[in-house]
Amino acid sequence: MTRWRITVEYDGTGFVGWQRQENGPSIQEALESAIERFSGETPRVFGAGRTDAGVHASGQVAHFDLEKATGAATVADALNAHLRPDPIAVLDAAAVEPTFDARISARQRAYLYRIVNRRAPLTTDRDRAWPVQTPLDARAMNEAAARLVGKHDFSTFRASLCQARSPIKTLDVLDVAREGEEIRIEVRARSFLHRQVRNIVGTLKLVGEGRWSADDVTAALEARDRSKGGPTAPACGLFLTEVLY
Amino acid sequence: MTRWRITVEYDGTGFVGWQRQENGPSIQEALESAIERFSGETPRVFGAGRTDAGVHASGQVAHFDLEKATGAATVADALNAHLRPDPIAVLDAAAVEPTFDARISARQRAYLYRIVNRRAPLTTDRDRAWPVQTPLDARAMNEAAARLVGKHDFSTFRASLCQARSPIKTLDVLDVAREGEEIRIEVRARSFLHRQVRNIVGTLKLVGEGRWSADDVTAALEARDRSKGGPTAPACGLFLTEVLY
Repeated sequence: MTRWRITVEYDGTGFVGWQRQENGPSIQEALESAIERFSGETPRVFGAGRTDAGVHASGQVAHFDLEKATGAATVADALNAHLRPDPIAVLDAAAVEPTFDARISARQRAYLYRIVNRRAPLTTDRDRAWPVQTPLDARAMNEAAARLVGKHDFSTFRASLCQARSPIKTLDVLDVAREGEEIRIEVRARSFLHRQVRNIVGTLKLVGEGRWSADDVTAALEARDRSKGGPTAPACGLFLTEVLY
Repeated sequence: MTRWRITVEYDGTGFVGWQRQENGPSIQEALESAIERFSGETPRVFGAGRTDAGVHASGQVAHFDLEKATGAATVADALNAHLRPDPIAVLDAAAVEPTFDARISARQRAYLYRIVNRRAPLTTDRDRAWPVQTPLDARAMNEAAARLVGKHDFSTFRASLCQARSPIKTLDVLDVAREGEEIRIEVRARSFLHRQVRNIVGTLKLVGEGRWSADDVTAALEARDRSKGGPTAPACGLFLTEVLY
């Protein structure tokens, strides 16, 4: 038995999300099917981040166990061959210690949220960024973002369906930077509440539009009440970019 | 009568190319239809670059004439509304002198060719880059590219269907640079032969693989014979990025 760690990239547009569900195709199911077609075995695949429907990944990490003896390059190439034509790619595969757990062993998860801030609709970036027409002040967004860095009760930014035991999380990084017409929001933490990143981005957009101040963000955080936060930003702008162990 | 200059972005994947054709949807036809629905007029739209099927643009420029008196913001917004759901966007519109001609007045056209150089297939970049699995030496490609800069007879890199009167063109810029797993090839010239960029990229890939030297590129150029050049790179990696006047 070998435990395999894989790094996975995907375009989440046509999927119900990472997690296997009855109502449509998931990334997990596509990977498990590819593993079965390659090996004849039916291990469960465990991912570091349970991305929602429409959320993308450039650096998701997952693990699974195989009886079959094989090499790392073969695992990656065979899975990629069996994943076609789904927009899911195994970037890397490695044999790891049997104690490695993609979800539990993770020290830090990194997400990127992309906003394209212009009047014209998207073409080549459609479904891979949030198009926002109102001019956004990225500097003001970045200043307000600093209010959320550190250890806080994030109930204001937590989806009602969130199953985490505690609403207390520690944001290591929350940076907002403009690159031309694109606004890139980088966020890093050991773990996140359900929809935390998208709820934070929807709130920072209010700041970018000048409708909210940084103090309003602090007040919303301190209210510990989802109804005091901004709206949820759409899934299409979100990318799981890296998981550190 | 007002002459309008528009800057246009599009995902060329589902189109037969810029130019109106019988066998499928074109960018030109989509723009002309949107103009008619907005204004009731049926002007012809002239583009700076006749991009092939599957080629994208982030900065195509075109012009057309309208009798209707209207403002620049209205032209852009109305065309974008009528272009939905096509992945075509008008980034900018401006009233210009009646002597302005998007094709003839252009001083320089810029293209970007994107190669993603890795073993794994593409997901979020599918149809928007050329996936090349063999490791490529971008520095060797850049050195060989220098052999093609300047004024030359580019018959070796000219499609057999090319209608240009002369095969002599002047490349102002041909730069190859690696950014992580992506290789970006920037090329600038007043004008190009048909498929010149894709034929040059297909040749530079042979250099990147170590199969050709820079001297082989010089010899191919001097042969003035399409059969002595490398294969044509696929359309999906090519973007018309800028037109200067």
